[in-house]
Amino acid sequence: MTGYRRVVLASRPAGAPTLDNFRIETGPMPVASEGQLLVRTLYLSLDPYMRGRMSIAPSHAPPVAIGDTMEGEVVAEVIQSRHSDYREGDVVRSMAGWRTHASIRPGDARRVPAGRVPMTAYLGVLGMPGFTAYVGMRIIGQPRQGETFVVSAAAGPVGSLAGQLAKLAGARAIGIAGGATKCHYLVTTLGFDAAVDRHAEDFARVLQESCPEGIDIYFENCGGAIWPAVLPLLNRYARVPVCGLIALYNGIPQGGHDFWPDTILAVQRRSLTIRGFVNSEFAPEYYGEFLREIEPLVANGNLRYREQVVDGLEAAPRAFIGMLEGRNFGKLIVKVT
Amino acid sequence: MTGYRRVVLASRPAGAPTLDNFRIETGPMPVASEGQLLVRTLYLSLDPYMRGRMSIAPSHAPPVAIGDTMEGEVVAEVIQSRHSDYREGDVVRSMAGWRTHASIRPGDARRVPAGRVPMTAYLGVLGMPGFTAYVGMRIIGQPRQGETFVVSAAAGPVGSLAGQLAKLAGARAIGIAGGATKCHYLVTTLGFDAAVDRHAEDFARVLQESCPEGIDIYFENCGGAIWPAVLPLLNRYARVPVCGLIALYNGIPQGGHDFWPDTILAVQRRSLTIRGFVNSEFAPEYYGEFLREIEPLVANGNLRYREQVVDGLEAAPRAFIGMLEGRNFGKLIVKVT
Repeated sequence: MTGYRRVVLASRPAGAPTLDNFRIETGPMPVASEGQLLVRTLYLSLDPYMRGRMSIAPSHAPPVAIGDTMEGEVVAEVIQSRHSDYREGDVVRSMAGWRTHASIRPGDARRVPAGRVPMTAYLGVLGMPGFTAYVGMRIIGQPRQGETFVVSAAAGPVGSLAGQLAKLAGARAIGIAGGATKCHYLVTTLGFDAAVDRHAEDFARVLQESCPEGIDIYFENCGGAIWPAVLPLLNRYARVPVCGLIALYNGIPQGGHDFWPDTILAVQRRSLTIRGFVNSEFAPEYYGEFLREIEPLVANGNLRYREQVVDGLEAAPRAFIGMLEGRNFGKLIVKVT
Repeated sequence: MTGYRRVVLASRPAGAPTLDNFRIETGPMPVASEGQLLVRTLYLSLDPYMRGRMSIAPSHAPPVAIGDTMEGEVVAEVIQSRHSDYREGDVVRSMAGWRTHASIRPGDARRVPAGRVPMTAYLGVLGMPGFTAYVGMRIIGQPRQGETFVVSAAAGPVGSLAGQLAKLAGARAIGIAGGATKCHYLVTTLGFDAAVDRHAEDFARVLQESCPEGIDIYFENCGGAIWPAVLPLLNRYARVPVCGLIALYNGIPQGGHDFWPDTILAVQRRSLTIRGFVNSEFAPEYYGEFLREIEPLVANGNLRYREQVVDGLEAAPRAFIGMLEGRNFGKLIVKVT
């Protein structure tokens, strides 16, 4: 163990990222200064928001600089502690990035509790994606008994939890996902009332038939071609939490029909609420509540989740590119060590 | 006084309404049944929402049927009372429509208090338009000290009050209006911090210069060409109460640039809230509060308003058409008797 490896941003993508945009680097093992921890990454989380960090477009956070380590959350094991609160073998979460080892400050880490649920869950259903679903539903979606809830990218970690939370609130849950396998999973494993394949040629019609009483909440994870099918179905006072727009992250298609006038007219005539959000804006107030409420339901199996684990840090760029194309199935995690 | 006159919807407009879409009819004087009131219209309110009632497109309320009286609120004098709560000479508001006389139920009327402010104010700043501005600001806009507030159709009855409420909350208020006269009025009479002429060739640049710290609230009364200039200026957590879309009521322009992807990306990246509303959804809860708070400020001159009064029911169609083109200046009212 004489060095560490990391994935750096080699160049900014023009459109969809390619393997050329990433570079593996090695370097001398980081050193923990007094008060710090040296950690070894066990699992790295790959999430769509990372696409935003590769570009200089304004976003919630500044971009990763060329040559810097790609941003990301990890679950890591303390292999050297120079802080009295931590011991070797403790497991923590931190935004250490795409790297095998890091020296971190305890203030930037959060303990992963042992035993109740697998540690990888703290990168997914009990981590940032799960919290994102939770606050999007709690603050904006506000599902009520008998309402109709629709979510895109429904088989992903955010959509899966959002739909299950809608069911817990007594709403009908309809998931939009890519392909029959994911759609089958939504209904049979997660308990969604229906699932609609976004690749279906008659997608808009199938969605309409799945929502005979219209849509009260549309949880937007995708952007792109789904909106024109959703908009006519939105009921008066419908809420649209805008969480992710993975279809637009690689660039905006040009020359399409202008859906903005249709949208704003519907907003006005039907008293719609469209609200963008990022989990961090609610973290101080709601994170504790989220864990207290959701962790037991995950531990006892009432809330389900699915992971796709790929092996080795070197596999991260390819897996990440595949995720942006919808090729993953479940929360995408890299097993680093 | 042997008959009454009314304006009926003769045909549905294709695009902008024309005089042909309206017809004056006369008929025998209405009769007040037991428990009803016979009223004589003093003033009729003309408002942009009436354009929606002329078409069959889905909206907050059903359309006016061909041959039916145009919908509208009036201030009227009781000329015969068959209800013990009312006497001849009482002044009421009611949705009697574009007509000189009507028999109405007291439950559909609301007394206009005598003396404190002119009765026409209850069709404007203290009526539906004022209440619309009030709830749009109170519930959605929520202006705070030091924020920047922008409103379109700022010289109209809704925009004028919204801007003054922003000032009362300690925000900077910038009004968008058509022409130098209205812009001058906004700054000198209403106390807006700046006004931007929507006809200015370099409109987007002037708006940007008027909002050096971006926009925290955009109160949308217009739709159309203003949005592309507003969108880049919206700050994180900006709120967009969508009140009216007068530029789109006559039809959606085709073939324009697709602003929807830009909009939804901004919504997501900047945690924007876009919320359509109609005053009636908040009426039960907030109307009393509105009157208690705003009526004294109008009576003592701290809140100002402007009216444009046209003479005679026959003048209503032409005045209404002009309003949709932005040719009125102030709350448009028809003096009927």
